[in-house]
Amino acid sequence: MLRILISEPYSNYNKPMRTYLDCIPCFLKQTLNTGRIATPDEAKIRKMLDVIGDQIKSFPTSATPPEMGQIIYKTIRDISGVDDPYKAQKAVHIQQSLAIFPSLQDIMTHADDKLLTAIRIAIAGNIIDLGMEKSFDLKNDLDKILHQKMAICDIQNFKSQLIKANVILYLGDNSGESVFDRILIEAMNKPVTYVVRDKPVINDVTYADAIASGIDSIADIITSGSDAPGTFVDRCSPELQQLIKKADLIISKGQGNFESLSETILPVFFLLKAKCPVIANHLGVLEDDIVLKQSNFFA
Amino acid sequence: MLRILISEPYSNYNKPMRTYLDCIPCFLKQTLNTGRIATPDEAKIRKMLDVIGDQIKSFPTSATPPEMGQIIYKTIRDISGVDDPYKAQKAVHIQQSLAIFPSLQDIMTHADDKLLTAIRIAIAGNIIDLGMEKSFDLKNDLDKILHQKMAICDIQNFKSQLIKANVILYLGDNSGESVFDRILIEAMNKPVTYVVRDKPVINDVTYADAIASGIDSIADIITSGSDAPGTFVDRCSPELQQLIKKADLIISKGQGNFESLSETILPVFFLLKAKCPVIANHLGVLEDDIVLKQSNFFA
Repeated sequence: MLRILISEPYSNYNKPMRTYLDCIPCFLKQTLNTGRIATPDEAKIRKMLDVIGDQIKSFPTSATPPEMGQIIYKTIRDISGVDDPYKAQKAVHIQQSLAIFPSLQDIMTHADDKLLTAIRIAIAGNIIDLGMEKSFDLKNDLDKILHQKMAICDIQNFKSQLIKANVILYLGDNSGESVFDRILIEAMNKPVTYVVRDKPVINDVTYADAIASGIDSIADIITSGSDAPGTFVDRCSPELQQLIKKADLIISKGQGNFESLSETILPVFFLLKAKCPVIANHLGVLEDDIVLKQSNFFA
Repeated sequence: MLRILISEPYSNYNKPMRTYLDCIPCFLKQTLNTGRIATPDEAKIRKMLDVIGDQIKSFPTSATPPEMGQIIYKTIRDISGVDDPYKAQKAVHIQQSLAIFPSLQDIMTHADDKLLTAIRIAIAGNIIDLGMEKSFDLKNDLDKILHQKMAICDIQNFKSQLIKANVILYLGDNSGESVFDRILIEAMNKPVTYVVRDKPVINDVTYADAIASGIDSIADIITSGSDAPGTFVDRCSPELQQLIKKADLIISKGQGNFESLSETILPVFFLLKAKCPVIANHLGVLEDDIVLKQSNFFA
């Protein structure tokens, strides 16, 4: 009952990006890729593909990709019996990110515009995405993103909002990227609550991953209450919904959070690298562009 | 009745390549790509994706990709009302191929091993494939393939078989490639029957496309009696089945024909470029390798 009562006033917060036609073959590709990580049993993977193929006809175009993501990864968990297929890879990415963390701190020491540099570092961490086809090279890509022109950069308003913000939420995305997020959280120098997925989905950061990333040393951590690889306000835990209501600044990392909040009228800033043509088109940028974009709240 | 009676003795001719897990997302991608060529109506394309997604669970792994290809392209025709989505592109590719035909003849004039050169030219034509994601550049790719090492090259046996062959079938693949096929047919210097698809499917060569390619000047043309983008002997017309029975040399162009005949014990030589990782793996070669491979008939 509580969920229904609370979800109503939030209905305007979510007029999200829809599922484009290009997303549909990609759903099957993601099922295959993660199915293979979860199990070597071809018959089980085939069953996952059958289930997701069968779901397509009943998946509304008005829904968003992370809603199918939620179905895909639940299907994979149910059929493989593996709760967290990317567990080992997530641990590796967190370790690799922790290993270069001192060099990220060093970059900050020498930065002129510390906040913008921290934002670039946080976006650089967004290359660690195992839901995508693209491979990545942490050190080389980091260097590139630190010098890459930002296709959208609402930094002035971000700075203005940050100064007056009292309740700041930070919506985490991938494990490993979570280590990079620490740089931005520290640079903001304000109390922050870091939001993680309630259950493992893709390589998204969970509570345990956030702890392993050292987030607990600089921010409170709260789970979304959902296993969606995005943030659907009306499906979040009542506790998080209350926090969202109070927040005067929300930092949204990555594609999944963007897809679920793209048309929100919450005070959100989206930080992401546009890693697929669909997102890039929707944002009006090029593939691989990096973005700091304010939400319609500020329009 | 006739079909059932005839199909039985051929049952051993077809133990074909199966559908691999990687093929399944690719089915949806092909549906999307060709759907967009057939119609700008997103709702119709979405319907096509729904139908093919729904088909996955009932598509046996033991079936071959061209069998799903047949379903995909029939679905696209039925929903879009467009009988031949690639009609315009096929015409362009035939024209482009006819334009470079004199230069192909010129290459032949200067060739030391005329038959092997003609085989390379015929394989080069196989780059014209609109069912694949890959783009191609006719002139550059031709030059590359003429000098590329063949990953499998059963040329000695091909020459031996050709000398004694009386009934030769040539299974065509793509439109445009059909112009390149003329070079090999001429070089063989024997009566040849050229087999085309009965109905438009992908950009595969139909009767009209073969005529436009000038095949009629050097070979008889017969349709397969099927709209499959491959050659399933027991689904071919009775007339073609009789010819297949009599043939002592069958040249099979491209992936679709290979996929449907890979384990055949008919006297087939497969000429193709391995354009996807699945085919390459199945053949034990690398992606983009070129192949002249004899069938198990000669094993």
